[in-house]
Formats: sequence, C-alpha cells, structure tokens
Amino acid sequence: MSKKAYFPFTAIVGQEKMKRALILNLINPALGGVLIKGEKGTAKSTAVRALTEVLPERREVQGCPFSCDPDDNSCQCDSCRSKAELTAVTSRMRVVDLPVSATEDRVVGTLDIEKALTTGEKHFEPGILADANRNILYIDEINLLDDHVVDVILDSAAMGVNTVEREGVSFSHPAKFVLVGTMNPEEGDLRPQLLDRFGLVVDVCGEKDIQMRTEVVKRYLEYEQAPEAFLEKWRPEQEKLCLKINEARKLLNRVSYSDDILRLAAEISISLGVDGHRADISMIKTACTNAAYEGRNAVSKEDMKLAAELVLPHRMRRKPFEEQRMDIDSVYEMIESSEGI
Amino acid sequence: MSKKAYFPFTAIVGQEKMKRALILNLINPALGGVLIKGEKGTAKSTAVRALTEVLPERREVQGCPFSCDPDDNSCQCDSCRSKAELTAVTSRMRVVDLPVSATEDRVVGTLDIEKALTTGEKHFEPGILADANRNILYIDEINLLDDHVVDVILDSAAMGVNTVEREGVSFSHPAKFVLVGTMNPEEGDLRPQLLDRFGLVVDVCGEKDIQMRTEVVKRYLEYEQAPEAFLEKWRPEQEKLCLKINEARKLLNRVSYSDDILRLAAEISISLGVDGHRADISMIKTACTNAAYEGRNAVSKEDMKLAAELVLPHRMRRKPFEEQRMDIDSVYEMIESSEGI
Amino acid sequence: MSKKAYFPFTAIVGQEKMKRALILNLINPALGGVLIKGEKGTAKSTAVRALTEVLPERREVQGCPFSCDPDDNSCQCDSCRSKAELTAVTSRMRVVDLPVSATEDRVVGTLDIEKALTTGEKHFEPGILADANRNILYIDEINLLDDHVVDVILDSAAMGVNTVEREGVSFSHPAKFVLVGTMNPEEGDLRPQLLDRFGLVVDVCGEKDIQMRTEVVKRYLEYEQAPEAFLEKWRPEQEKLCLKINEARKLLNRVSYSDDILRLAAEISISLGVDGHRADISMIKTACTNAAYEGRNAVSKEDMKLAAELVLPHRMRRKPFEEQRMDIDSVYEMIESSEGI
Amino acid sequence: MSKKAYFPFTAIVGQEKMKRALILNLINPALGGVLIKGEKGTAKSTAVRALTEVLPERREVQGCPFSCDPDDNSCQCDSCRSKAELTAVTSRMRVVDLPVSATEDRVVGTLDIEKALTTGEKHFEPGILADANRNILYIDEINLLDDHVVDVILDSAAMGVNTVEREGVSFSHPAKFVLVGTMNPEEGDLRPQLLDRFGLVVDVCGEKDIQMRTEVVKRYLEYEQAPEAFLEKWRPEQEKLCLKINEARKLLNRVSYSDDILRLAAEISISLGVDGHRADISMIKTACTNAAYEGRNAVSKEDMKLAAELVLPHRMRRKPFEEQRMDIDSVYEMIESSEGI
Amino acid sequence: MSKKAYFPFTAIVGQEKMKRALILNLINPALGGVLIKGEKGTAKSTAVRALTEVLPERREVQGCPFSCDPDDNSCQCDSCRSKAELTAVTSRMRVVDLPVSATEDRVVGTLDIEKALTTGEKHFEPGILADANRNILYIDEINLLDDHVVDVILDSAAMGVNTVEREGVSFSHPAKFVLVGTMNPEEGDLRPQLLDRFGLVVDVCGEKDIQMRTEVVKRYLEYEQAPEAFLEKWRPEQEKLCLKINEARKLLNRVSYSDDILRLAAEISISLGVDGHRADISMIKTACTNAAYEGRNAVSKEDMKLAAELVLPHRMRRKPFEEQRMDIDSVYEMIESSEGI
Amino acid sequence: MSKKAYFPFTAIVGQEKMKRALILNLINPALGGVLIKGEKGTAKSTAVRALTEVLPERREVQGCPFSCDPDDNSCQCDSCRSKAELTAVTSRMRVVDLPVSATEDRVVGTLDIEKALTTGEKHFEPGILADANRNILYIDEINLLDDHVVDVILDSAAMGVNTVEREGVSFSHPAKFVLVGTMNPEEGDLRPQLLDRFGLVVDVCGEKDIQMRTEVVKRYLEYEQAPEAFLEKWRPEQEKLCLKINEARKLLNRVSYSDDILRLAAEISISLGVDGHRADISMIKTACTNAAYEGRNAVSKEDMKLAAELVLPHRMRRKPFEEQRMDIDSVYEMIESSEGI
Repeated sequence: MSKKAYFPFTAIVGQEKMKRALILNLINPALGGVLIKGEKGTAKSTAVRALTEVLPERREVQGCPFSCDPDDNSCQCDSCRSKAELTAVTSRMRVVDLPVSATEDRVVGTLDIEKALTTGEKHFEPGILADANRNILYIDEINLLDDHVVDVILDSAAMGVNTVEREGVSFSHPAKFVLVGTMNPEEGDLRPQLLDRFGLVVDVCGEKDIQMRTEVVKRYLEYEQAPEAFLEKWRPEQEKLCLKINEARKLLNRVSYSDDILRLAAEISISLGVDGHRADISMIKTACTNAAYEGRNAVSKEDMKLAAELVLPHRMRRKPFEEQRMDIDSVYEMIESSEGI
Repeated sequence: MSKKAYFPFTAIVGQEKMKRALILNLINPALGGVLIKGEKGTAKSTAVRALTEVLPERREVQGCPFSCDPDDNSCQCDSCRSKAELTAVTSRMRVVDLPVSATEDRVVGTLDIEKALTTGEKHFEPGILADANRNILYIDEINLLDDHVVDVILDSAAMGVNTVEREGVSFSHPAKFVLVGTMNPEEGDLRPQLLDRFGLVVDVCGEKDIQMRTEVVKRYLEYEQAPEAFLEKWRPEQEKLCLKINEARKLLNRVSYSDDILRLAAEISISLGVDGHRADISMIKTACTNAAYEGRNAVSKEDMKLAAELVLPHRMRRKPFEEQRMDIDSVYEMIESSEGI
Repeated sequence: MSKKAYFPFTAIVGQEKMKRALILNLINPALGGVLIKGEKGTAKSTAVRALTEVLPERREVQGCPFSCDPDDNSCQCDSCRSKAELTAVTSRMRVVDLPVSATEDRVVGTLDIEKALTTGEKHFEPGILADANRNILYIDEINLLDDHVVDVILDSAAMGVNTVEREGVSFSHPAKFVLVGTMNPEEGDLRPQLLDRFGLVVDVCGEKDIQMRTEVVKRYLEYEQAPEAFLEKWRPEQEKLCLKINEARKLLNRVSYSDDILRLAAEISISLGVDGHRADISMIKTACTNAAYEGRNAVSKEDMKLAAELVLPHRMRRKPFEEQRMDIDSVYEMIESSEGI
Repeated sequence: MSKKAYFPFTAIVGQEKMKRALILNLINPALGGVLIKGEKGTAKSTAVRALTEVLPERREVQGCPFSCDPDDNSCQCDSCRSKAELTAVTSRMRVVDLPVSATEDRVVGTLDIEKALTTGEKHFEPGILADANRNILYIDEINLLDDHVVDVILDSAAMGVNTVEREGVSFSHPAKFVLVGTMNPEEGDLRPQLLDRFGLVVDVCGEKDIQMRTEVVKRYLEYEQAPEAFLEKWRPEQEKLCLKINEARKLLNRVSYSDDILRLAAEISISLGVDGHRADISMIKTACTNAAYEGRNAVSKEDMKLAAELVLPHRMRRKPFEEQRMDIDSVYEMIESSEGI
Repeated sequence: MSKKAYFPFTAIVGQEKMKRALILNLINPALGGVLIKGEKGTAKSTAVRALTEVLPERREVQGCPFSCDPDDNSCQCDSCRSKAELTAVTSRMRVVDLPVSATEDRVVGTLDIEKALTTGEKHFEPGILADANRNILYIDEINLLDDHVVDVILDSAAMGVNTVEREGVSFSHPAKFVLVGTMNPEEGDLRPQLLDRFGLVVDVCGEKDIQMRTEVVKRYLEYEQAPEAFLEKWRPEQEKLCLKINEARKLLNRVSYSDDILRLAAEISISLGVDGHRADISMIKTACTNAAYEGRNAVSKEDMKLAAELVLPHRMRRKPFEEQRMDIDSVYEMIESSEGI
Repeated sequence: MSKKAYFPFTAIVGQEKMKRALILNLINPALGGVLIKGEKGTAKSTAVRALTEVLPERREVQGCPFSCDPDDNSCQCDSCRSKAELTAVTSRMRVVDLPVSATEDRVVGTLDIEKALTTGEKHFEPGILADANRNILYIDEINLLDDHVVDVILDSAAMGVNTVEREGVSFSHPAKFVLVGTMNPEEGDLRPQLLDRFGLVVDVCGEKDIQMRTEVVKRYLEYEQAPEAFLEKWRPEQEKLCLKINEARKLLNRVSYSDDILRLAAEISISLGVDGHRADISMIKTACTNAAYEGRNAVSKEDMKLAAELVLPHRMRRKPFEEQRMDIDSVYEMIESSEGI
C-alpha cells in the first residue's frame, strides 16, 4: 500500500515536555526510551508516529534484516560479522510498531526447526525485534500488553540481544532499540518492572487554553481536508528540527559534566528516597543530551532541572497510606543552590 | 437463499435522533460511526438493517474482494494498484454483519501459509473486514464481543488497514468502514476504548406515547402479514430519502464553518471537562454534515446543537461518587449566546 | 431402536396454562415458543415429549435434510430452490431434542473443508438446527446450556437461518423453529437475552389438591404397568385434540382484531413499564391464536386476558430494591373496562 | 487376573437399612437406584461389591455387548432387533464400576469415525454404559464425579438410552441400569439434579454398639486371614438370600395397593411440602417391592413406613435459614392413622 | 550412573517412632503404609531412602516387569499366570520414587493403541505403579501431588490392581505396594481421602536435645566427608537390623490375639469417637506386627500402646471450633486397665 | 555474537556481604548457593554476571555436554563412564542463565522418542540443567519462576541428577550446580521450599552514603563511555581476587573445626527455634569456607559470626502475629562467650 503521510511533528500544538523527551531519545538512544501517559485523544500516538519524518539517518549494512551497523562489529549479527566486506547504505531510523495483539512468535521471530534438523542449516524468520534493532520500538496501549510478550521484550531490552530457542536449536541477533510506549492510565497500571525499564516518563493532558485548543482543532481539520498542502506548509519547520537533532548527535560525545553534577544527582536521589542507582545515572545522561540539543557542551542547572522532571517521578518508592508526590520545587531548589555547576 | 426484504427505514415510528445519526454517517463516512444503546425491543437492529434499502451508490473496482475505489489509488489494495487499468462498476454500499460469535480468523481473513511457502505466492482468503471496506460494519450486541476480536477491529479502525501476519508472511488490505454497533446497556458496559472509537452515540427507548406506540405495533403487524404490499406503500418515502442523502453527499465538501465555530467547540469541551480533542473535532464534522443534510452550505447554531447531543455524552470523564449528567441546556445556552455564527 | 410411546398429552392432570401455551405454539409457530419453569417432577418434560402425538401434519420436500416447505420458496434451502420440480410428502412436525451437553458442532452441523477445497464442492453434514427447521426445538434444563451454544441458537432464532463458516467457506440453510425450553429455577436463572426470545412463559408447580395429586400418581402407575392399554384408553381424547388444533390452524388467518385491541395492548405495556414493543406484538398474536383455538374469528377480552398472562410477566423490567410482581388483577381490570372490544 | 472373592453380603454386621435398600433394587430395578451416604470406613463399598454374589440371574442375548433381553424387543439394540433369531443365555446381573476418573469417552464408548466414513459401516467401541445395561452401575465417591460425566449419565438414566454422536454420525444403544452411588458427605454435596435421580437414599454410620463393633472387626480379620474358609462358612446364608430375592421378583407383579394407599402417599408429600410427584410414585413402588420381599401380595402400613424412610428425606425442599429435618414420627403417625389399608 | 550409597538407617539419631513405623511396614506390608509429617530438615526423606539398605529379600519371577510372586498365582500378572513354569529369583524389595511432578501417564503406564489395533496384540509400557508392585512406593511432598495422580494411586491402593484403559482397550496388572509419604505440614494439608489410606502416621520434629543435635550434625558431616568409611563403620548395625526384620517376618503369622484385644480396640475407637472400623482393624494388625518385631508370639499391652499411637491420631473426626487432641494418657489407661490381655 | 565484557566484580562499590557470599560459593560449591534479595537497581544481577571474570578453572571431559569431571567417575554421565579413556581439558566455570520465561523442555532437555523407538538409540538434546552441571545456575527474578520449572530444579538440586522421562524412555545425567538467584521482594515472596534450598541469603539495598553513591555512578558512567579502558584499569584487582579464590580452594579441605564448634552451632539453632538440622550444617560449612578465604586452617569466632549472618535469617520459623527479627547481637554474644574455640 502507498506510503502514509503523518501529521507533522512540529505542527503539534503545545505538549512541549513530551516532544522534548522524544527528541532527546533520537539524539541519544542510550537514554532508555520514553513512556507517555495520558487520556485518550491527547495526541500521544500522533506524536510518536509523527517522529517518522524527523528521524535521523545512519549507515546500515545493505540487505541485513537486522540493520546492522557496518562500522561497529561489536554488535553485528553473525552473518555480518562473518563477512569480509560489508556494503553500507544510508537510511533513516524507523518507528517499528508492536501491536498489542502481537504473539510472542511474531515478536521474537521463528526458527524453522525441521529445516535446521534436516539440512543442518538454521533458518530464522525475523520478527518485530529484528526490525526494531537500531530503531524505535513503539507500543501503543503498552499497559494492555500480554505478560509473556512483556517478558521477552524486557529480556531483549536488558541484554540488547534477542535469542530464540526451540528444541535445542538457538539463534541470536542484536536487538537494541529505543522503547517508546503510550498508555491511558485509566485502563490499568503498568507492571513495575516494565515501568522501570523506561528512562523517561511524561504525563500529558488535553490542552486547557482555549486559544491553543482552538488551534489544535483547526490544524487537525486543515490537515484532514488537504494533507499534502498542510505538509508542504510545515516542511521548513520540519527540516529545521532535523538539522538541530543531527547537530546535537554530533555534539553529544563532547558534552562534559563535573563531579559536582554527579554529587548533585546522588543528593537528589537520596533526599527523595529513590532506591537503586538508575535514577542518578539517567539524570546525568538526560542532562548531557539536553545540553547537546541546546548546543552547549557542558551541563547546566537548566539541563538538570529538565532531567529531574523526566527521570524521577516514576522512580519514587510507593508506600502504602502515604501520599507521595514529588515536590519538584524542592528539587529545583537543590539544583539552584548546588555549587560548582 | 432468496434476498431478504427489510422493514422500510422510513416506516420506523419516532426514534428521530437514532435515524438522523445513521443517515449522517451515510453522508459522511468520516464521522466515525454510531453506537446505539437501548433496551431490547426498541428497533435498534431493525433500523440498522433497514439502512440497506437507502444506502447510496458508489463506484468500485469490478471483482475486487475489497471493493476498492477505482478513482482513489491512495487506498487501493496491492492488486488494484498494480493494474494498469481498472474496470469500475456502480453498486450500493452494504451493511456487513459481524456476528458476536465470529472468530478472529473469520474477521481478519486467513493466509494460506503452506501455499505461500511452496509456491511463493501469497494466498489470502478474505474475512469480514475485507467485506467491510467502504461499507457499514454492523455489530449487534457489541458489548458482548470477544476482547481479542475487539482488538483487531480497533486496530483496523485506527489505521484503515487490516494486516494479517502468520509465520513471517503478511498481507494487508484497506479496511475503512462505518462502524455501527447496537447494545443493551442492561447486559454490561462497553470497553472504554471501544466506546471512544464511535463518533456518535445515541440512547433509544421504547415509545411512551400511546398513539405512537399503537402505530408502531400496527405497522409491524401490517408488515408481517403482507410484507410486499407494505414495502410498496412506503416506496415513495424511501426514494425521497435516498435522493436527499445523495444531494447531501455532493454538498458536504462545500459546507464552511467560521473560526468562531471552532472556538465554540473548544469552549464547550473545556467547560464540560472533556479531555483530549476528539470531541471538538467530531462536533465540527457532525455539524457540517447536518448542514449538508439540511441543504445548507454553512454551519448553523442548530447544527451545533444536534452535534453536541450526539458527540458529547459518552466523552465525559467519569469520576467516582459524582453524578455527572451533561446539562444539555447549559450547552444549548452556550451555543445560543455565542456570537459570530 | 423401536419407536417410543409417550404418556398421552391429554392424560396430564391439571397444568392447564402450560398445556395451552404449548398448543397455541402448534397452531401458530410465529408466537415465538414457550419457556416452562418449574421444580423437578412437575411433568414439564413429560408434557413437551407428549406433544409428539398431537403434532399437526404439514407438507415437506421429500429427502430434504431441512424439511423445506415445497409451497414457499422464500425460505427453502439452496438445493430445493435450484430444482425445477420438488416432490412433496406429508409428515408430522417433530420434537427435536437439543441435549444440554451438545457441542456447537453438533448443533450447527459441520462443513467438510478438505472436500470443499479439493473437489470445489461444499459438503455439509447437517446438525440439530437442520433437523429443527419447521419443527419444535426442545431444550431441557435450558438454563444450564453452554453460552456459546446459546449464541448460535439465538443467531438462528433471530435470522431464521443457520450459517456455518469455516476457513472462508460458508453454508446456510433455513432454521425456523418453535423454541421450547424447560428449566428448574432452583438451578440458576436464564440469561436475559435468551429469556426475551421466548414469546410465552409459564410457571408450573406440583399439584396441591389431594384429589388431583392422587389422580396424577394413579395415572402414572397405570401407564407404567401397562403402557399400551393406557394409550388405547386415551386415544379418543388425543384424536379430539389433534382435530381441534388443525381446525384452529385453518381459522387463524381469518381472525381479526380492532384498532382498540392494538391500543389496549399499548396501554397495558405502558402502564406496566414494559420497554420495547415485543410485548404488545406478542399479546396481539397470542390473543388471535387463542381465538382460533376457541373457534372464534375475532379477538375477545378473554383472549387478551390469557395473552397478558402468558406474555407479560417475564418482560417486566427488573429494578433493584423494588418488589415488582405484575398485578394481574389490574391488567384484567384494564381489559374489562376497555371499550370497543 | 483371577476372579476376586468378595466379603459375603450376609456377613455384614448391622446396617440393615442400607442392605434392605440394595436388595429392594435387585428385586425391582425400576425403583431408581440407591445413594448411600456415610463417613469413610462404614462398609459402604464393601456392601455394594458384596452384592455380586447375590445378584439374580436373567436371560440375555448371547454375544451382545449390551446384554439385550431376548424376550423384550422394545429395548433391544439395533443389531439384536434386526436378527431373525436370537440365542439366549442365562447369566447373573453384574456390578459395573464407574471410576471417578473415567473420561467421557470411556463412559459412553467411542465411534470410529474414519471407519464409518471410509467403509460406510458404523464401528462402535462400547463403553461403561454399554456394560451397565440391565446391570448395576456403581459409582464410588459419586460426589467427586466430573460434571460432564454426570451429564451423560443423567441423560442415559433419563432416557434409558445412550447416544454417541460425532461429526454427524450417531449410534444408540439401550442403557437401563440400577444406579448405585456411595459418598462421604464430608467431601462435598451431590449436585441436586443427580441426587433427585436416586429413588432411595440411606445414611450409614459406624457401629456404636461395642458387641457389634467387635463382631465387625472379628469377621473382617477372620475373612482377611482365610478368605475361602470364611466364604464357605457363610454360603448357606448367601443362598438363602438369593432364593428370597428370586421369590420376591416373581411375586412383585402381583402385589396390589388400594386407592387409599395412593391417597396416603399424596397426603404425606403435601404435608411435607414435597414439590413434584416423584416422591409419591417412589413411595408406592418401594412399598410394593418391600411387600414382595416379605412374601406378601398387598402393601401394608409397615411397607409404607419403610418406603417413607427411604424415599422422602432427600426430596424435601431446602429453604434458607430454616432447619428442616423430616419428622419421621409424624409421618409414621399419618400412616398409622390412615384408614382402609 | 553409579549406584548411590545412602546414609545408613541405623545411624539416624533419635526419631524412634518414625523408624519403628517404617520397620513395621517392612515386616508386614498389609499395615497400609506410613505417612511422615514434619518440618523441613528433619531427616524424613533421608530415613525413607535409607530403608534401601535394610529391605528384606523375597522371591520374584525372573524378567517380569511387575516382580510377580512366583509362589502365589492369585495376584500374578496375566503373562505369569499363563506360563506353565516360572523361573524365580531372589531379590530385595525396592524403594520406588514417585516424583511430585510425575504425570498420570508416567504413573500408570501407557498402552500403545495403534499397535493394539493393527497387530491385535496389547503393548503395555509399564509405569511407576508397575515398578511399585510388591515394593515401597515413596512420595515426597505428597501433599503437593496433583489431584488426578492421587486418584489413580488411591484406586490402585484400594484394589491392589492398576488398570489402564484407552479407546476401549484395557490392561491390568497387580499393584500392591507399601505407600510411604512424607510432607511438610506448613505447605498445606493432605486430602482427607488420601490421609485415610495410610495405616500409620507419625509426626517428627527436629532434635531439641543439644547432645543429640550435635551428634546429628557430626554424623552428617562425617558421612559427607568420607561416605564409604562411614558406611563401613555402620555395617554391623545394619546387618543386625536386617536379621531382626527377617526373623519378625517369619514369626508374624504365628502371633495370636485374644477376643479381649478385639474388644479393647473397639472400646478405644468408640470412646474416641472414631467413625468407621479401619482404626480398630489397623490397631490389631500393628500390635501383632510389633509383637513379632519384639520376638513375641502374643500381643501385649505394650504392643497395643504403640499401635494406638501410630494408628489413632489421624483418624479422629475433626469438628469445627473444638480443640481435639487425642489424650494418649487416657488411651494408655484404658489399655492398662483392660483385663484378659 | 562477540564475547560480552562485564563490569568488573572488584569495581562494585560496597555491598560487601553480597560479594562475600558469592565468593564463598565459588570456593566451596557445596555451600548450597546464594539468594540475593533487593530492590531494583541495586547491582544484584550486575554482581552475578561480573562473577564470570573471576571464576576458577577446573578440568572437564573434552566434548562432554555435561562438563563431566574426568577425575571423579562417581558422578560422570553414562557416556563418560563407559569410555576407557577420557581426554581432559582445563576450562573456567560458567554462569549459566535460566531465563524466567524458560519452558520445562528447555530446562531439562528433550528426548527424541521417535528416534529412540525406531533406532533403539536414545537421543537426548541437552537443556539448561546439562549446561549447569559443575557451573553456576543463575536465575534472575527467581520469585517469578513458573512453579513447574521450580519443581524440576528442586528435584535436580536435591538429587544432583536430572532425569527426563517420556513414554517409558528415560535419560539421566549429573546436574550439580551452584544455584544463584536474585529477586526484588516487592514483586512477591519466594516459595518456602525454594527458599530453603539456598544455603546463604543476603539482603542488599542501594547505597545511602553520598560519597559512595557518587562513586557508584561515576564508575558506571566511566565504564559505559569506555568499557575497555575501564576493564584494563581494574585488571590487577581482578587477578588478585582470582588468585585468592584459588588459594582458598586448595586450603579448604584442610580447615578443621572442634566439637565445640559443632556444639555452638546446635546451641544457636535451638536458641533461635530453628527446626531441622540444615542450619547447623550450613553454619559449619560456611565458617570453614570463610576461614579458607581468609587463609586460616581453623574456624574462628569471626567465621562463625559471618556464617550465622548468612545462614540463619531465612531459616527462622515464621509465626503469625509475631514480629520475629533475628537478634544478631545475641547470636554474636553466644559466639563470643563460647569456650574452646
């Protein structure tokens, strides 16, 4: 079927935190993905699909079903690694859909055992995780996902590898992806384990400002009536964003942070009673990435504020009978008053 | 078996809102379907089946199992798109039944994997969703539908495409349909996700006026005793309605709305605490379609009133321990007092 | 196995309302069947099986597994409809049993898919619904029936057609039947949907009058000791009843009712808060059939009284915390005081 | 394996009511079986298995898997009925075991569909119900029986026929049996439907008299140490019982009862609030059979007393919050004071 | 794998009652097995496995998968019984493990139906119950056993026969075994039915005496470090026990008991409210076996005391809201004061 | 795929008890494994995987799928035991992963029955337990493991053998492994049976000291940015640890303990109410191993203190309504005041 045109990412009205969280993950896939929570009709999946048009390009091995990186053999598939020479092509990252109704077979791929046993040759039919390698894996209504499928995704996310085993035959391939999920909290919570896998979490709600709300509807109806004209109109904005993302990707490795930043992150986590160390690490990395997006090569207090907002809320330990909402102001204060930054 | 004759749509006594909601969807399939809620014996399914006789005609590709539109290749099936020339025929839209007991296989169709693997050719046996493309998909007792089947229908409804995947082979075809559901609220609620997919919702109840109730029974018994004579008697009414619908379809694209209308819709949604933006968009589109049905080319206050009634009630957020019935009078007042319309 | 001799219908002591409800359905299969509710040992299933001996004769196509009507091609099976000429035979209606443990396959019949795919010819193995066409479908302990089987029976009852679909092949045949169910209310209620399908409902209980109760036991023991002598003794009564039923069938189409009757039915329904219109329609049809059974060609007040008793009780809306037993006396009064009948 | 020798029925100490109920069913298989309720270790199943040695002889068709009666073709299997001549053999009734873990297939038998379809000949592999025809079907721990198996047994018990259907092929054979069940009420109740199928019910408990209890243990240890000597010792008692049972079988058809007896049964049932008529009928038949066992040809008050004890207790309607234990004394009084008996 | 050496039975410190109960069952397999209840780490399964080294020898048919007794054809398998001559070998009883995760197929064995149907010859693959015949069947964590497997074991235990039936083909073999179970009461109770099957029950707990507890650990560590030396050291004790068991087996049939003993057993059961007669019978048999172990040929008061302790506790009827612990002292008193023993 | 480099074990900040428990098991595989409990993000699985780099070497049979020990034929597989000569190779122990989603088949391996039946040769496809023999079996989120899989692991752990049986064919191989589990107690408890299998248990929590917490994050980010440089930097520490472990392994068999130590262990267990004897035995063995790690050849009070901390907490009997936290100070006191050590 013909290629679908999505609503332009830059034409989405408001929802700045959600848009920023998505962009930061495009710049730095090691941030650990984004979970977007919000009621129906709040443009969550529209935003994710809209990413398609602003995704950066990267080199991949031509014809490889896992889009292996020709320049880094540490996580290539066996076939790529065994080849003397690899032909590279340049292509865009993709948003790969994982439908809620997908079966485990469809997600991990299938091994043709009979063929393996008779010909001695492994025949692997790639699944969604193969497709997702070095791309964005998008799961809408992620809280409704089957527990069994969640398990295999968590395994892959943790190891960066998807392994399929059947009757003693096994096949592995790299499966590193940016996990993006959307969910309506009215329809049930997310399993804590899965929640913890997300680097960043944002809550979105419908626009309450009448001017902006009118603008939302107006743009949507304008797009629906004449999609191509609308896309044309927004093309300059889209190109500007692409450029900015690519600049940030190049700058990212040169962003530096002081020991005071490390200490600040630890202080925030301890003061909020966050167990484990993932929060501290995520804060630092998110702050660096934001600095890169803003064109700076050192982490600022503003970067830390944004990082705290995106990283901390879902990592608080929940205690029974205790209302525990993160007091963002007190965190801001800690950041403001920290020295040496 | 021989062609069934249905009770004439125009002979249905009363139930004006239900009839209008159905007609508006015939005029504008982008309204997002209708859900009709009511106790047993309130002519819900009689009305939907009666649509059969007043459905508009449209052109479709001859012999295509998906009834592809010969004039719009953006959503044709692969086979139609690959052909140099297409033969078009004119035919009526159809009401396609999805029985509550239908299995997922029957709904999405089946892929003959063995054939695919041995001959290399995909063989797809179309299901109900194939049949439903560009038609009305009718689900009686929709609240009793199996969750798994609901999932695949929601997926198709959201994407306009039905994708079947088995063991790494996949097949897609367009699946855009007007979703019409009927249900008895005594037998359980509808899953919120599914409810939200419906553009319009109407509640119906049995006739309370004794004159009209006697008329209902009289017409039914008259029809049962001599169906053909009854149909003959109502033919002029039926033809009048068909004509009106066709006129409206032609007028629809020329109906205009002012920015004040957009603003009014946003104000109504905000004042009622409707989250998300689907309500605003649906109100505008429903109002435009009603204007077209009434032969007008600009949206009036009356159109907005009707739209509000059909679009808003099922989109209110439900809060525990809070009686929340939409105060339609206050909405009417907002509409009446809005300026510039 | 040899033909079973049943206890004679006319020898059943008392239980007049149950017997009348069954007879009316023999006269007019469009009444929508009977549900008989009562504790164990109250001769419910004895009565239904006893019908066998008083069932009317009708013409059917020789050799057709669906007993098609040779004189009405509007609901013949495909095979009958495709034949130039049909041989008719005269035979009695039958009581077809649907055991509670019947599987869906057994109920709807089976399609031999392999044969269909290899020979291109559909091979359908008829099920219980095929057998039931134009006969009585009897379900003992209907409240224990599997939900899935209930669904397919409801579908067939609603459409008059049984459709079997497997892997894209489908087969339909007419399936119009008088649905008769018996149940012990101590063992669970009937699903509302299924209850609503029954035109008439009667409650039966064991005989409380000592004279009659003694007579019940006496006749049973007499029958058990010498069944053939007993049958012989009751043959004249049985033949009298058969004759009366046949006369009534001929008279039925000539029974007339005034507009006042229609109005009365509507008034009763509204005053009792019956939603929907099935109750009104059923009352009229039941009254007409009773008139025919009594040899009259116009509906009388007595007919309406009986109809109200058989049609209304199970159609009352049940409200929580509200004792709602139909006040039959007030209905009688409405009927008595209605004018023009 | 070698034929098992059972503990002699006549050597069972005490438990008179249980032994009488079993004997009455041997004399009159139409009594509807016995349910024996009692705690573990109360010789319930010992008693049932001990029946084996005192079962009456009857004629059956040689080689017929259903033990058809050569002298009554009204309930022979198709094969026996189709033969011009039948060879009869004399054999004892048998106790046929239905283990709690039996599958439905094992109970009803299996139809070899492939053979049926290829050769056109039905091949039926008989199950336990085939074996049970004209014999005793014994179910230990009947309250633990799978619901599905209960259903098929109830169907057969009700119809006297076992019907197996698979993919449109069906096979029927007679399945009339005396149903004997034992259960420990500590392990759950019996489904009411199944309880109602039993003509007679007895409660047993361990012997409380020290003399008798010592005798119980003594006999058991004596039997265990030297089974054959023990059997020899009790042979005369066993033969006496067999003779008495056979005499009673011959006398049974000549036992008469007055209308006063019928009236008395009805009065008892009404006064105890027993719904339905099975209790009355069972009382009469049990009283007649007991009269035959006692060598009398008319029902006495003593017969009615025993019958009331065995027939009534499990047929009382249970009402919530109401202690309802049958007052056997008041029933005795009604019997004593009834006239004309 | 190489033969495993078990911890010597005689080296187990303390736990005298458990050890005695196991030994008595080796002497007299008709005692009905032992259930050992105790918390984890109390040497329960160590003791059972240790039995392996002290099991008595007996003659069995060479090559018979059911270890048939060549000297008693009353419970041989069909194959052994059909042979003119049997070769006997002498071998030790075995401890046969039934793992909690064993499937029903594995327990009862499997019938190769296809072979049976094509060659007419039954092919039976023996299961655990075949192995268990004339041996000890050991079930660790018996309270976690699948209900279905419990059923088949109970059936076999009750009949001494294992019968496998599939599609009308059946195969039986003798399955008489000493059932030994161990369980941790913290992990759930035993189904009452299964509890009742055990002739003897003992409760064990960890050693509380510091001297003995130190000895337990010392012996264990000594064994773990140098198993073979340890076994050698204990060999004399082991051989002494074997000899004593064999002597007792020979003496057992000559142990006598008076009528007073029978009366005493009955009195004890009645006074404790034990229903059924299994307790009385078990007490007598256990007392006889203990007498034989002690080298006496008449039952003494001491034998009865031990028997009462092993037989009674688990046979008390449990009543709600009533603390009912057997008062062993009062039983001792009854035994002491009984005359004629 | 290329060999993964793990975070160095010696670079883990803090968590001394967890690291010690893991090391002790490497020195003495008979300690019975470690369970590590702690909230997410506390480096539990990082520590286990990091073991990979410090695992000791041992000799194994070349090409044997069970890594059999060439020098100890008492627990070799059948194939190794049947060979006249075995080629030995030196290799490191491995950490074998058991994913929570692993099926029973995958864990125990599979038997190819068809091959076995047709060729008479057993064909066994080794599973995870084969791999685990003489290695570390690691189960992350062990509390989420399927009960059925837990059962087979417990069976193997108890017997040191994995036995696979299918349709009467069975295959066994040695399966002795160090069981290491990690779990988040927020996500459910561990089945008591499984808990009891672990020799040692440690609780871990996130670092609360700000200096150390900053160090944790710093090292992690340093490792993530340049893994190879980081590994290089820590190589000396890693090699030092390896050496120490190997020294301890050699010393272990020469560590001695006095009878006073045995007595002390028994006293501690009794005073804490620990049932069974596993706690005493584990304390002794853990203390010996710690002595070896510290380079001593006699158990000291310090060894006993550490052993008590690792062995006792999870072995306390839990009583309802009683807060029971082990008072480690009182245990320390008992150790300090014990004489002769």
